[in-house]
Amino acid sequence: MDLPPPVSIQHPYLLFLGDAADQLAAKTADGVARWRPDWCIGQLRMDGCNADLGLPDMTLEQAAEAGARTLVIGVANRGGKIAPSWQEVMVRALELGMDIASGLHNKLTDLPAVASFAKLEGRNLYDVRHPSREFDVGTGEKRPGKRLLCVGTDCSVGKMFTSLALEREMKARGMKADFRATGQTGILIAGSGVSVDAVVADFISGATEWLSPANDPDHWDLVEGQGSLFHASFAGVSMGLLHGAQPDVMVLCHEPGRPHMRGLPGQPLPDIAECIALNERCAHLTNPAAKVIAIACNTARMAPDEAERTMAGLAQRYGMPCVDPMRTGVGAIVDLLD
Amino acid sequence: MDLPPPVSIQHPYLLFLGDAADQLAAKTADGVARWRPDWCIGQLRMDGCNADLGLPDMTLEQAAEAGARTLVIGVANRGGKIAPSWQEVMVRALELGMDIASGLHNKLTDLPAVASFAKLEGRNLYDVRHPSREFDVGTGEKRPGKRLLCVGTDCSVGKMFTSLALEREMKARGMKADFRATGQTGILIAGSGVSVDAVVADFISGATEWLSPANDPDHWDLVEGQGSLFHASFAGVSMGLLHGAQPDVMVLCHEPGRPHMRGLPGQPLPDIAECIALNERCAHLTNPAAKVIAIACNTARMAPDEAERTMAGLAQRYGMPCVDPMRTGVGAIVDLLD
Repeated sequence: MDLPPPVSIQHPYLLFLGDAADQLAAKTADGVARWRPDWCIGQLRMDGCNADLGLPDMTLEQAAEAGARTLVIGVANRGGKIAPSWQEVMVRALELGMDIASGLHNKLTDLPAVASFAKLEGRNLYDVRHPSREFDVGTGEKRPGKRLLCVGTDCSVGKMFTSLALEREMKARGMKADFRATGQTGILIAGSGVSVDAVVADFISGATEWLSPANDPDHWDLVEGQGSLFHASFAGVSMGLLHGAQPDVMVLCHEPGRPHMRGLPGQPLPDIAECIALNERCAHLTNPAAKVIAIACNTARMAPDEAERTMAGLAQRYGMPCVDPMRTGVGAIVDLLD
Repeated sequence: MDLPPPVSIQHPYLLFLGDAADQLAAKTADGVARWRPDWCIGQLRMDGCNADLGLPDMTLEQAAEAGARTLVIGVANRGGKIAPSWQEVMVRALELGMDIASGLHNKLTDLPAVASFAKLEGRNLYDVRHPSREFDVGTGEKRPGKRLLCVGTDCSVGKMFTSLALEREMKARGMKADFRATGQTGILIAGSGVSVDAVVADFISGATEWLSPANDPDHWDLVEGQGSLFHASFAGVSMGLLHGAQPDVMVLCHEPGRPHMRGLPGQPLPDIAECIALNERCAHLTNPAAKVIAIACNTARMAPDEAERTMAGLAQRYGMPCVDPMRTGVGAIVDLLD
């Protein structure tokens, strides 16, 4: 079976870094370059840019000549406005035949010059934070194919990174696997997907069902999770995503040592056993066999020996593999999948 | 403390029934007339209308003369289009100085004649299914005041009806209480509120926090729930609403005997004990004291003795009052509140 989502962003990409103040401002582009190096033919940096992805610096003209199909805006804009100098770059890219894909909050389609020029030239604008289509409500009906969902104790604990590491490892082993993106950086990396937190509330599970359609019985969708059932701001998104993904297995992503839930001072992280239990209990609504099979830790802030001790402790305590995708890879998780 | 939501629909209302094929097509208007009889000065029926709310029939001119402030479109339109004859009525209502509030899927603001005329005359158009403002993300921070949330085993089991019956009983006892509407009919009944299932997914809990702000320590918000944590299409909405409402107490609404979850053939209703347990567990994230204290049954399809046996059985089994707001009233629930 071959059912790609109907719209996908064409590569090769030229990554636009603008006048990024530092590497962090370009972290979306950084993610794209890390996970899709073959798709990225160069970077475009303007005066004052302090970020560098290690890709060849190119002008728009050079990139067009080299075959770039899409200009990817993978950088945070300062102050919430898209500078005129950026818009000039965008218009020129359209003139040269490129589409534009943007992870900005501001929509490209709200920029009159860019929008009208794209229409005139028949080019596509992808505002990946903003769903561009309507979805049906979820049905909860079981679909063929296997699904792994990364869930979390909190936001920003490595769900996208873990999903992508799993995809890479599984493909390297010759398994059928596709990363399914639910957030803006993931969508630029996958070339398609849906920002689940930006759909209308009634359609959270339906959008996720659309994202991960019926597939071959031995095919794995690796669905990027969002938020946490224990995050007071975003748990509704996590819940609908869990039901729509109807995972066979889940990987619990966690960053040890956080003082509180992201953005919510004073609200402690959930107990890991409780987090596993609640995710399994809620997942059973659409897949009674759903099970958390591993823990993926982000131990970037720990010394190597501390990280190792922490992971060994978690593995023993919860009776499942515990990895750090960055330090150890995710082979121990893929060993459990068939 | 007195913190009304910033926008509220002005009454008296003139209820527009259009050419409703039957009473069911006018069920939104029917709900408004039932719960806010003092606000409704008349009904406007067109040729072919088979619904009747028992209110005086009025022309627009008569209603304007009698002081009507808002024309309420509480009827389903046929075929998803708003007929030109309806639009003529709307424009005339605006001319006569009324606002318009609509529970239709189609937006009034998408009707050029209506929208431009409203702007010209400085009148308000309320599309109550469509949130008209932006919300912050939820914080989960505890707010003063008490909150009761109606949760459900399924959709359309009587959450709005139960909330409104509680408000009426509590006000009759001199308690401070306000119904907080989360769906279109409720908003027309309350004169304000937010269609929580229509907000962007990231803001479900934030919109609910906005809906039920800090209040007097002895004031009760009666928050209308939506969906069910066990409904595969809408559980994300229910989850965010539960966190945003941070209820002190919950009433579980249930219709015994349903063959399957609404709209989802083959998916059975949850066990009541499991439904109570999961709602309490999830609610504890933002209010560790949250507790289901009663069951409200919709026994409309049962004979009186069967209904009585069913309610007595549930009350005994779960150790809490079980009422049918329509048959028994909700006094037994209010007895538990202070």
